[in-house]
Amino acid sequence: MEIAELGEFGLIRHLTEEIKPENQSTEKGVGDDCAVLNYGGDRRILVTTDMLMEGVHFDLQYTPLKHLGYKSVMVNLSDIYAMMGTPRQVTVSLALSKRFSVENIEELYSGMLLACQEHHVDLVGGDTTSSLTGLAISITAIGEAPAQDIAYRSGAKPTDLVCVSGNLGAAYMGLQLLEREKAIFNSQRPTPNPSLEGREDSSPTRGGQEGSFQPDFSGREYLLERQLKPEARRDIVERLQQAGIRPTAMMDISDGLSSELIHICTQSHTGCRIYEERIPLDYQTAVMAEELNMNVTTCALNGGEDYELLFTVPLTDHDRVSQLEDVKVIGYITEENLGRALITRDGQEFELKAQGWNPLKEEKS
Amino acid sequence: MEIAELGEFGLIRHLTEEIKPENQSTEKGVGDDCAVLNYGGDRRILVTTDMLMEGVHFDLQYTPLKHLGYKSVMVNLSDIYAMMGTPRQVTVSLALSKRFSVENIEELYSGMLLACQEHHVDLVGGDTTSSLTGLAISITAIGEAPAQDIAYRSGAKPTDLVCVSGNLGAAYMGLQLLEREKAIFNSQRPTPNPSLEGREDSSPTRGGQEGSFQPDFSGREYLLERQLKPEARRDIVERLQQAGIRPTAMMDISDGLSSELIHICTQSHTGCRIYEERIPLDYQTAVMAEELNMNVTTCALNGGEDYELLFTVPLTDHDRVSQLEDVKVIGYITEENLGRALITRDGQEFELKAQGWNPLKEEKS
Repeated sequence: MEIAELGEFGLIRHLTEEIKPENQSTEKGVGDDCAVLNYGGDRRILVTTDMLMEGVHFDLQYTPLKHLGYKSVMVNLSDIYAMMGTPRQVTVSLALSKRFSVENIEELYSGMLLACQEHHVDLVGGDTTSSLTGLAISITAIGEAPAQDIAYRSGAKPTDLVCVSGNLGAAYMGLQLLEREKAIFNSQRPTPNPSLEGREDSSPTRGGQEGSFQPDFSGREYLLERQLKPEARRDIVERLQQAGIRPTAMMDISDGLSSELIHICTQSHTGCRIYEERIPLDYQTAVMAEELNMNVTTCALNGGEDYELLFTVPLTDHDRVSQLEDVKVIGYITEENLGRALITRDGQEFELKAQGWNPLKEEKS
Repeated sequence: MEIAELGEFGLIRHLTEEIKPENQSTEKGVGDDCAVLNYGGDRRILVTTDMLMEGVHFDLQYTPLKHLGYKSVMVNLSDIYAMMGTPRQVTVSLALSKRFSVENIEELYSGMLLACQEHHVDLVGGDTTSSLTGLAISITAIGEAPAQDIAYRSGAKPTDLVCVSGNLGAAYMGLQLLEREKAIFNSQRPTPNPSLEGREDSSPTRGGQEGSFQPDFSGREYLLERQLKPEARRDIVERLQQAGIRPTAMMDISDGLSSELIHICTQSHTGCRIYEERIPLDYQTAVMAEELNMNVTTCALNGGEDYELLFTVPLTDHDRVSQLEDVKVIGYITEENLGRALITRDGQEFELKAQGWNPLKEEKS
């Protein structure tokens, strides 16, 4: 059977459905943003890991190495916050090809360490080895949370409010913009195969130095930043804690709102209704979608890489959650038999589908 | 600067020397077999991670996927035991190329789960994604140990005895044997480039099915097993605990005895003397080295991938440690100014050099 038939989530489910944890210290294994470990006391340890592969998750032709390092740590910290936890440590494994100089790795590391510093996280170990082909980055983040504060994906209840932080779709628009400028840049270069020698062009601003080409990013800086330098939303976790709001379910939006909402509903055995008009969008996202002739709601639902937080709170928290800065209520949780739907501006209901970013399925095309 | 000039350990030192842990929970960061975390209580949490890249760490032409899965978990568990810890959880990240079917991944996973079962370890999470090129495996193991029992690399003292478990050099001889048979096999095949299509030949025993070639492994099964299916030495840790012996320093032998001894001496600020005649060797290792016209002591010192334990104990434990099954005293720790030396059978002293396996340095050649 081809892996593409199952996709990432199908494959993971298939491989792990038989696994039964046998250690007392394993409180929650596969299936949430983090594993939850109980090594005694009333705090729990959270562990999450992500692997980023060159050519699949990042393109060094337009991704500065420092940004790549920063992002690769940040996406892991985001998973810790998505359980209402506090990240404490990361380990970093790198597989490097011959193309990399010590200075390149210093640049990559400086971004990783910057992300660590901003979140008071220690880099405590890892592995550095060689790769015959592209760059591979594997990061594991470790954090902690009081047992009673941990927000799983499975805790949403009918009538709970569905909330998101920040705005959605901007990182995806940033990616489209970078891909467009890359295509223009490559069409003006004599070399036909950028992927094999892209490293030297690791900064998009360097395009201009190599010829007449100058990428047009003016007024789009926000979209680029959302794609190249995402920020894990510690501030939202802190605001929720300060307001005394305990989310019933939570996860971070890495694959797209639609896909993540389905995860929460599936694991909570619920349905949901969200309102198109309430999905938070940035002005630049809307302008860019218009320019590219894309539906901006589709981008917000399926774009991915937002690294915003999606969570549910009891209906009784409505007033408190509505007052939180940069948090928006976009809908509510229903009984499971009502399904998961988007209600459009003109009042129609559309079933939510997980069309988010899925590298294992994409492979097939 | 080229990475090859620094090598793996030089690069890691260079990148991490400025890192100062700022979390109370970080007791020991980079520089040992595991990071040591203190999340309260009198037990400590151990974390280690390893990344294995196709073509660098394994060759799918002669490595069955189940064995690869088993080994990739085992080498991480070995690092936990090397701190006198007990492994409890692993996370597994895989990047897969299109060549892999679901059945291939099931095979790989079955080996991973077998290693977990044998050591009562839970697989609690990971990441599964795609790779444009070869297979990449990144595993993180988490374990625990009472704070006072943890054996760091830095605790060796002059007059301590240097001990190793099992025997050395066999895994390296197994690798030589596999490489030799692969060369013969490929020379008999019409296809000149095995590395691009090696996956189908994932089991060495399948060579015979594809033509007249039958690899000659008779009488060498032990060497193959040491290379393809290493075992982490939990039994040695348990024997030491039962005997009430607390090693002053410990690490596992993954890069070769010589390289690891230098790590212990450097971090403990000591020298050492080890005796060639006391280095434990298996009969098959010696026969194979003879056949390949290699010096068996060199293989034992620098071969790597033994996954045996190297440790030091106080001189007063001499009688107790000498009685331990499958443990051998091979020398002693000295003052630092005496250097690190091997004493040969004819009484000469040779300085120990770290010539172990180093993929980042090898790249240069």
